[in-house]
Amino acid sequence: MNFLEKRILADGIVKEGNVLKVDSFLNHQLDVELFNEMGREWARLFKDVPVNKILTIEASGIAIACIAALHFKVPVVFAKKAKTLNIDGDVFVSEVESFTHKTTNKVIVSKKYLNPGDNVLLIDDFLANGSAMNGLTKIVEMAGAKVAGIGIAIEKGYQNGGKLLREKGYRLESLAIIEAMDVATGTITFRDRN
Amino acid sequence: MNFLEKRILADGIVKEGNVLKVDSFLNHQLDVELFNEMGREWARLFKDVPVNKILTIEASGIAIACIAALHFKVPVVFAKKAKTLNIDGDVFVSEVESFTHKTTNKVIVSKKYLNPGDNVLLIDDFLANGSAMNGLTKIVEMAGAKVAGIGIAIEKGYQNGGKLLREKGYRLESLAIIEAMDVATGTITFRDRN
Repeated sequence: MNFLEKRILADGIVKEGNVLKVDSFLNHQLDVELFNEMGREWARLFKDVPVNKILTIEASGIAIACIAALHFKVPVVFAKKAKTLNIDGDVFVSEVESFTHKTTNKVIVSKKYLNPGDNVLLIDDFLANGSAMNGLTKIVEMAGAKVAGIGIAIEKGYQNGGKLLREKGYRLESLAIIEAMDVATGTITFRDRN
Repeated sequence: MNFLEKRILADGIVKEGNVLKVDSFLNHQLDVELFNEMGREWARLFKDVPVNKILTIEASGIAIACIAALHFKVPVVFAKKAKTLNIDGDVFVSEVESFTHKTTNKVIVSKKYLNPGDNVLLIDDFLANGSAMNGLTKIVEMAGAKVAGIGIAIEKGYQNGGKLLREKGYRLESLAIIEAMDVATGTITFRDRN
């Protein structure tokens, strides 16, 4: 087990409906030393891939992406969620459904910050059905830039987002992949990542 | 001039209505090396103050707070904006008006992550009329915790948020304080911070 899997076992809480609560360290209270270790690990995993920018999505992706960016020595751009389009200037727009909130958001990125020739690493805290990542890959491709890879903290292996992204040929590195959770016993089973 | 003031002069854009656009480095595209320098500077400025937690507000505050937290070696908690209260469990709630969007948001923090005895440093990217910071100080005080200080990247000195917070006795360290901006010439004048 790696450091993130150990932490999920120690502090993650399994809730009804295949929900994993990790808000004590990942998405409400934020353990920045853990994020530092995650950033170091993604930098190791993607060391053979050119990356000149990291793209994430507000809100909880920003924390992880920024600390990872210190290891890649590149800037971060974060896609903004907007119900209405009142942003000035030219933006790339894509749609993202929220699994948790059962809503659809438009996500936007200013055209100034993604360009042809960019090698963009996508980073997010969770991957479930892949809606957020699909929205971000579309935005990168609208910009004529290249998706260098996708770094995810926790992938829900029992949903199909990871499978679909790998089938499309994206290099996806999830630091923990949950195979199954049992709310009655609180047990969490991880997929072997090797 | 310090590193942030220099960067604002180099890359900030003055817009109609006393608006300063810094989205190329501070709140859409994020220069994490600049944030690292900001974190180092706050750690120096607050070195005599006990801090065991950093509190910020989504979305753009998260990036700065997390990188600062690496210098303080403490966790970050971010207050979430919620139009409706559908969060499970007990939360502290406060209200924040957005100067930019002309809306009022409820901001919430889980009661689990702020406790009596905590020494909380508040961090945010902008300070204008102080609405966000007032919301956060109220939440810290509801928790019975102590506001150790307030770290702001860019204070708009021509609005009264900074004045009011200093009058209340909070120790406020803004890395750049804008005295005036002129949209016709694009000039930006900083207040002397010493």
